[in-house]
Amino acid sequence: MIAANHNPKPSELAFVPFVSVDDMMRNIRTIGVEKAIVGIAEYIEQDFLRWESFDKKPRIPAHAPQGVIELMPTSDGETFGFKYVNGHPQNVREGLQTVTGFGVLSELSTGYPVLFTEMTILTALRTAATSALAAKYLAPAGSTTMAIIGNGAQSDFQSLAFKEMLGITEIRAYDIDPEASIRLARNLADSGLNVTICKTPEDAIEGAQVVTTVTADKKYATILTDNMVGSGIHINAIGGDCPGKTELHKDILLRSDIFVELPEQTRIEGELQQLPEDHPVTELWQVYAGKAPGRTSDEQITLFDSVGFAIEDFAALRYIRDLLPRTGHFEKLDLLADPDDPRDLYGMVLRSGAVDDNQAA
Amino acid sequence: MIAANHNPKPSELAFVPFVSVDDMMRNIRTIGVEKAIVGIAEYIEQDFLRWESFDKKPRIPAHAPQGVIELMPTSDGETFGFKYVNGHPQNVREGLQTVTGFGVLSELSTGYPVLFTEMTILTALRTAATSALAAKYLAPAGSTTMAIIGNGAQSDFQSLAFKEMLGITEIRAYDIDPEASIRLARNLADSGLNVTICKTPEDAIEGAQVVTTVTADKKYATILTDNMVGSGIHINAIGGDCPGKTELHKDILLRSDIFVELPEQTRIEGELQQLPEDHPVTELWQVYAGKAPGRTSDEQITLFDSVGFAIEDFAALRYIRDLLPRTGHFEKLDLLADPDDPRDLYGMVLRSGAVDDNQAA
Repeated sequence: MIAANHNPKPSELAFVPFVSVDDMMRNIRTIGVEKAIVGIAEYIEQDFLRWESFDKKPRIPAHAPQGVIELMPTSDGETFGFKYVNGHPQNVREGLQTVTGFGVLSELSTGYPVLFTEMTILTALRTAATSALAAKYLAPAGSTTMAIIGNGAQSDFQSLAFKEMLGITEIRAYDIDPEASIRLARNLADSGLNVTICKTPEDAIEGAQVVTTVTADKKYATILTDNMVGSGIHINAIGGDCPGKTELHKDILLRSDIFVELPEQTRIEGELQQLPEDHPVTELWQVYAGKAPGRTSDEQITLFDSVGFAIEDFAALRYIRDLLPRTGHFEKLDLLADPDDPRDLYGMVLRSGAVDDNQAA
Repeated sequence: MIAANHNPKPSELAFVPFVSVDDMMRNIRTIGVEKAIVGIAEYIEQDFLRWESFDKKPRIPAHAPQGVIELMPTSDGETFGFKYVNGHPQNVREGLQTVTGFGVLSELSTGYPVLFTEMTILTALRTAATSALAAKYLAPAGSTTMAIIGNGAQSDFQSLAFKEMLGITEIRAYDIDPEASIRLARNLADSGLNVTICKTPEDAIEGAQVVTTVTADKKYATILTDNMVGSGIHINAIGGDCPGKTELHKDILLRSDIFVELPEQTRIEGELQQLPEDHPVTELWQVYAGKAPGRTSDEQITLFDSVGFAIEDFAALRYIRDLLPRTGHFEKLDLLADPDDPRDLYGMVLRSGAVDDNQAA
């Protein structure tokens, strides 16, 4: 390692706080999953309320037959953030995650990163926080029952988010693979939620005021058909989130009032890709800001066509950055070269060699 | 930490090889700076020769008054790579680097990262490798003398690259700050290069077959005026690399044959931003592939209008990935959540809590 006498350790400038998977789990456990989701939702709402101050770009994808890798950058003019995230539905068969990610926050004034963190777990939390926040404005008042079609990795977090933020007490779970539903029920056993494992999607949505669809196949699928969906519900459509991947029959969309994050992104990636370019939608930030109505009647079907947007990750990154001083659950990563003289990068490499030579002597 | 009996350590799938600044310096010293530059240049040439197989996007910038943060993604259809890099000229005043960076390589088929590395040092190496590779095709045969205008962090690497790959023996150094030239001369004292510190840019280019301009100010500057530049030289223009930042008088460009990486990027960021949209340029990959001529006469002024392109970083990342098994200078970063059951992300968080509870007991 570095001999302190010959070569002082890198200064604090060289280190970037890093939250590993292990540290992320410690942070979340310290706070509690539900409280973390609520906290992230607050940050998301704050950032949606200052929507117009953000640099909003559609994400930058790299497509492969098996899936997609995306970079999702954004900035509020002071802080820059981006997430790297993949979506590979076939990964599960090889024991890999469908979605993994990591993210970075930086100071725009210096370009220096101030946080580097895993975002597989954090994305799961922010996706649930985003859904529950939207549902607070859109779901029928007094909703107590939520159907979840698709009981994979995101379903636990959705259940806990809706319990904590909406007062949902009953989960009606359906998955094409019953083992997935059993897994979900087991994990939620001590959560305070009642979980009913259902044999069909029709069973699952029976009596539900909120229907969450969160399946993973990368294709046009019809998880919900039109005749299954009655009036007066809120649909939280998570799984239709990339080109060629949808979950709902088009006729449901035509009966719904559709709420989106960034319209130009949702039209490419969301359920909305089934409808004409000019189909009217409402931007969620306008609902939060009181500039557009949310739910206006008991009979209305509201639909959150969720695809995930960079500002949500930005908010989640800000939440973690602000949390770290309280928990201390992070490492410092030697990521930035920090020569004594900033112009002397090569000299730093040269000097580091002298240290090794001295140690060898 | 993790108790092995209760919670097995994350599998190999969860870890991403990480090259810290310290490890990058070890890797480069193990190989030698010059040999590393030559190696990276070979990878760059390989990747330029298969230019058409790459997904080429202009980089994605986030601008601030003080500088810019850029994401530079690319893919060859099998591997995805990107670099995060900033450019903040005023950083030096605060003891920070003008340019820092880090980068990632991933398998496109799974979306999983296979390398995460510092790229401040690696960018310095790849920029020098890119310049020397271009000069191999463009500089006058038998060039021995190179002027370097701007003696900051990149100048050492340029000097060593041109020594190793072109046979340059004489460096004529000029900087607005003489201390910068003295720093450069000191670092190159044992390199086998003769370094002459010059009082003016005119002195520096006296007798030089290659002129490298690599200043850092973020503005339209005129480091070289037209009457300074004679015929039969190669100009290696590094510093004009973002909108609003150029180094050469427009009239020099009009007398030169201009070679570029990706035309649409260079027209926005390079010296080329001074010329009309349709000014003819030659793409370097076509020169390397024998599809377009490089230098064709002794009197010709050739100009490499370097702005840096994602494929060069991709090649540098590949070089480091392939180097690591030989040197072993890397760590493993716990970056990817890896539950036993990929669907059971929440269960992993739950179980990790049980471990802490057991330890506390």
